[in-house]
Amino acid sequence: MKFSQYRLPASARMAALATAVAAVASLGGCASPSGLAVKDVGSFHIGGKQVTLSGLPEKELRFTPTAPPIKVNPNGEFEAEQMYVQYITQTAPKAKYPLLMWHGGGLAGVTFETKPDGGEGWQMAFLKAGHDVYVSDAVERGRASWSRYPEIFTTEPFFRTKKEGWELFRIGPTWDADPARRVAHPGAQFPVGAYDQFTKQFVPRWATNNAPTQAAYDALVQKVCPCVILVHSQGSTFAFEAARKAPQLVKAVVAVEPSGALDVTKADISGLKAVPHLFVWGDNLDKNATWQVIAPTLRKYADGVKAQGGVADTMDLPALGIKGNSHMLMMDKNSDQTAGLINHWMASQGLMK
Amino acid sequence: MKFSQYRLPASARMAALATAVAAVASLGGCASPSGLAVKDVGSFHIGGKQVTLSGLPEKELRFTPTAPPIKVNPNGEFEAEQMYVQYITQTAPKAKYPLLMWHGGGLAGVTFETKPDGGEGWQMAFLKAGHDVYVSDAVERGRASWSRYPEIFTTEPFFRTKKEGWELFRIGPTWDADPARRVAHPGAQFPVGAYDQFTKQFVPRWATNNAPTQAAYDALVQKVCPCVILVHSQGSTFAFEAARKAPQLVKAVVAVEPSGALDVTKADISGLKAVPHLFVWGDNLDKNATWQVIAPTLRKYADGVKAQGGVADTMDLPALGIKGNSHMLMMDKNSDQTAGLINHWMASQGLMK
Repeated sequence: MKFSQYRLPASARMAALATAVAAVASLGGCASPSGLAVKDVGSFHIGGKQVTLSGLPEKELRFTPTAPPIKVNPNGEFEAEQMYVQYITQTAPKAKYPLLMWHGGGLAGVTFETKPDGGEGWQMAFLKAGHDVYVSDAVERGRASWSRYPEIFTTEPFFRTKKEGWELFRIGPTWDADPARRVAHPGAQFPVGAYDQFTKQFVPRWATNNAPTQAAYDALVQKVCPCVILVHSQGSTFAFEAARKAPQLVKAVVAVEPSGALDVTKADISGLKAVPHLFVWGDNLDKNATWQVIAPTLRKYADGVKAQGGVADTMDLPALGIKGNSHMLMMDKNSDQTAGLINHWMASQGLMK
Repeated sequence: MKFSQYRLPASARMAALATAVAAVASLGGCASPSGLAVKDVGSFHIGGKQVTLSGLPEKELRFTPTAPPIKVNPNGEFEAEQMYVQYITQTAPKAKYPLLMWHGGGLAGVTFETKPDGGEGWQMAFLKAGHDVYVSDAVERGRASWSRYPEIFTTEPFFRTKKEGWELFRIGPTWDADPARRVAHPGAQFPVGAYDQFTKQFVPRWATNNAPTQAAYDALVQKVCPCVILVHSQGSTFAFEAARKAPQLVKAVVAVEPSGALDVTKADISGLKAVPHLFVWGDNLDKNATWQVIAPTLRKYADGVKAQGGVADTMDLPALGIKGNSHMLMMDKNSDQTAGLINHWMASQGLMK
């Protein structure tokens, strides 16, 4: 990774780590012993439209093998292309703006809620750090729901195998169905023994829902922001585009292991001068061919934001001496440390009160 | 409805209502001005197993119409049949046991999180009343995820139309695609203008996943309980069966508009003597043929629990003078009032500290 490295105010690497540790230590303070002071918990769907199916034949359904079949008419009106958002707000947030957490491909907002080893997720970590948190499920995934195909969603979904996740998420180089025979990267921060538990979070995905997904995210920004967006992996293009369209509403983008970017030779990104970006990278990017293709596109985008006079900082964890992190930084053993570093960056950008 | 009516301690109907109002009023107290004192927020998946697909042909995928196709191999290992659970716990709960909220068919845990008119959901209402709350998405729905069919899930899913929801959930007698032409029941408590927003919560369902769904619920009870289960509609059979299997762990079942029950002529329900049941019913059951078939099965089940010497109370809202409620009691305009009545019943059963 050749990104310009994020410069912490104290400039020395060990100082950065010390700061991070201090930040992590401080996270626990406000949740104990009196707990988080939570103002509201709730959720909503946003985006989408009514669609009508007609002319489809009735289907026979059996609820048990021995039950008589029931005729079901699949025709009628449905909602489609909406997304789901859940929020937890606090009585006295320390952050100036709510934090929106947008997940990656083949995953849902659960990404941020839990660690597969049972540890505390980033939703709670950032709540403790004083943020109001909005965790969403993009169109087609999780609680956003999905639609009949090919009549409404125009193509078939596809399902990520455990092997693909193991390799693409850089847990390790060698997959095996038998957990005892899987090979992880040396010093892996991912809780390798909990990998199967993690894969219970996988959700199917479609290749053809980008436009409604962007529309729903844009609508979310209009409803909830000004805000900060923390986005993971495949969500990154949606976040960059949402910020490009509404730079006055998106006060920063934290791109955690982003996997896509705007083409700065085609998109007008002049407004992004006003939107500080942070790019956070784990380890072993050089050991996976896909990431070697992806990383340069992010570098070009970051350079493009900087060419506008904007802020595009990079937090390359291995370069900070933090080794072994996977693509799933929020589930790695040192997730609190990484959250602390991100929170420190947000403070450095004037995003905390 | 001919159920024996739930008897509030003060016995007079107006006293019951006054108590309910008082209970509702008290709900707001602990969330303001210092907020709910929240100890932890997180989620987990439970249940399920690894399955392997093999011998399926590669598929070509295009992420945009002009992009070159990508070959995807659908074979490999996947997790299947898990369920999703999200929890919010408090530093000083007033309830003796956590409250598990189990949704109905074609829906997910969102049922309890929000009202389609933007009002406060039962998740927050019961948090305010002092319960630790676990909201789940059953196998196949929402964040639980779903599996390729017919290879893993053996049948096709089906999708509820808006018309079916309008009628079956007793919003009104007459559906129309045009909101202005829909007819609601007189004095409907459901926020009729927000019905389309509600239908964004609908998720596909399968007819053939009852066994893994029960298994996942049973595993949840083993993990989280002792507890109280508040269950809606199609979830009721799972809750009754979970209580039958673990009557020492399930301290009560609140069945809100239940749509299925155990057959007490076949199942050994002797253990349910120790599990108090409350059945909560809205209005207009007599105006829908499906509910006229369902209601007697619940009556038989309630009688069966009582025949064991157990508690099986019924809270028939119209008989209490509370008219116009739909099947979606937790989304109706008077949802706080109904929550207050349920909370009062839980207190009467010794479930609060």
